[in-house]
Amino acid sequence: MNDKIPLSPLDRMMKLLARLPGLGPRSARRLALYLLTTRGGAPLDEMITALQDARDHTHICDICGNLDSVSPCRICQDSKRDATLLCVVASVADIWAIERTNIYRGRYHVLGGVLSPLDGVGPDQLRIASLLERLNNEEIGEVILALSATVDGQTTGHYLSDKIEALGEFNITRLAHGVPVGGELDYLDAGTITTALKARSKAS
Amino acid sequence: MNDKIPLSPLDRMMKLLARLPGLGPRSARRLALYLLTTRGGAPLDEMITALQDARDHTHICDICGNLDSVSPCRICQDSKRDATLLCVVASVADIWAIERTNIYRGRYHVLGGVLSPLDGVGPDQLRIASLLERLNNEEIGEVILALSATVDGQTTGHYLSDKIEALGEFNITRLAHGVPVGGELDYLDAGTITTALKARSKAS
Repeated sequence: MNDKIPLSPLDRMMKLLARLPGLGPRSARRLALYLLTTRGGAPLDEMITALQDARDHTHICDICGNLDSVSPCRICQDSKRDATLLCVVASVADIWAIERTNIYRGRYHVLGGVLSPLDGVGPDQLRIASLLERLNNEEIGEVILALSATVDGQTTGHYLSDKIEALGEFNITRLAHGVPVGGELDYLDAGTITTALKARSKAS
Repeated sequence: MNDKIPLSPLDRMMKLLARLPGLGPRSARRLALYLLTTRGGAPLDEMITALQDARDHTHICDICGNLDSVSPCRICQDSKRDATLLCVVASVADIWAIERTNIYRGRYHVLGGVLSPLDGVGPDQLRIASLLERLNNEEIGEVILALSATVDGQTTGHYLSDKIEALGEFNITRLAHGVPVGGELDYLDAGTITTALKARSKAS
C-alpha cells in the first residue's frame, strides 16, 4: 500500500505475526486474514482472551523453571513423583516431550538453553546455579542429563557432569544414543550408526 | 499433563494456536514458549495490543470488501485510481498480491472465495450480488477476472462472465496463463505448457 501513511493496525498485526518463530510474511498474512475475516470475528476474540489469560495466569516455577498456572508447578508439587530423580532439560518444551512418554516419574530442572559461546550463552545465562543448589539441598540420587545430541547440548552435558561430580556422590546419567524407533538405517548419519553399533545389546 | 485437571491457560492458548491455518501442535508449542518466556514478556504484550488494535480498527470496505482501517477503503477512496477498471479477486490476499506489483491502478472487488459446490459455497455465499450492482451503478468499462487457475477459480470466472455479459457491454478479461517468470519448463505441468504454447507471441 502507500508507504507515506503510518502502518495501519492490520499491517502492524501482520508485522508482529511475521516476526514469530517459524512464521514469515506469507503465513502472517494468512493468519491475519483468517483471524479478521472468519465470520463473526470469534477466532480473534478467543485468541486475544487466551493470550491474556496465559499472560496473566502462567508463571515460571521457582523451583524447576517449568511453565504452569501455579508456582511451584504441578510437577514439583506432586508428592507421588520420585523426588530422588532429577531430569535436567534445556527447555520447557523438553519437559512436555518427556511427559508425553508417560514413563518418567521424577522431577525436572530447566536450564533455559544450552551453553553456546558463539551466541553469548555462558553458565551465568543458564539456571545452573539453582541446579547445583537443588542438588545440595534436596535428597537427589540420580541426575539425568536429558540434553540434545548436538555439539552444544553435549558440551553442556560435560560441563554439568564436572560441576555435579565436584558436589558429591550423584549417579549422573544421559539419554541413550542409537537408531530412532522407526528410523531407517539408510537415512541415518554415520555418527548415529557408529554409536548404535558400539552400544549394541544382545537380541533377546 | 494430567487429563483430569481442566485445561490450564497455557494449554488453552496452545490449543487455540494449533487450530490456526498452517500451524499444528508442534509450532503452537514453540510459539507459546516464545511468547511467554522471552525476557520481560514484551512479545506477548505487543501481540495482544496489536491483535486488539487490528480487531477494533480494521473494517471490511462496504464497497469492495477489502480490509482497511477505514471504510470505504483507501483504494476505493483514492481518486487517482482508474474508476473504469475493476479487478475481481477471490480474497483480500489477492489484492495484496496485485498491489505488490505496483502496476495496477484500477479498483477491486473481493468475492470472499470461489464457487465450490463440494464445500457448499454457491453464488449466494460470495459477494456477487454487490459486484453486479456496482457494474450497474458505477462507470466501469473493463472487468478483470483475476481468479486462480484452479478448477473452482475458472468455474467461478465462467459463471461471472455469463452474469456480467447479461448485464450489458463490458470488456471482460482474465489473467494470462503461461510459464511463470523464472519457471523451468522441466518442472511445469503439461497443461501450463500447452496453454503457453497456444498463447505464444512473437519474440521481439
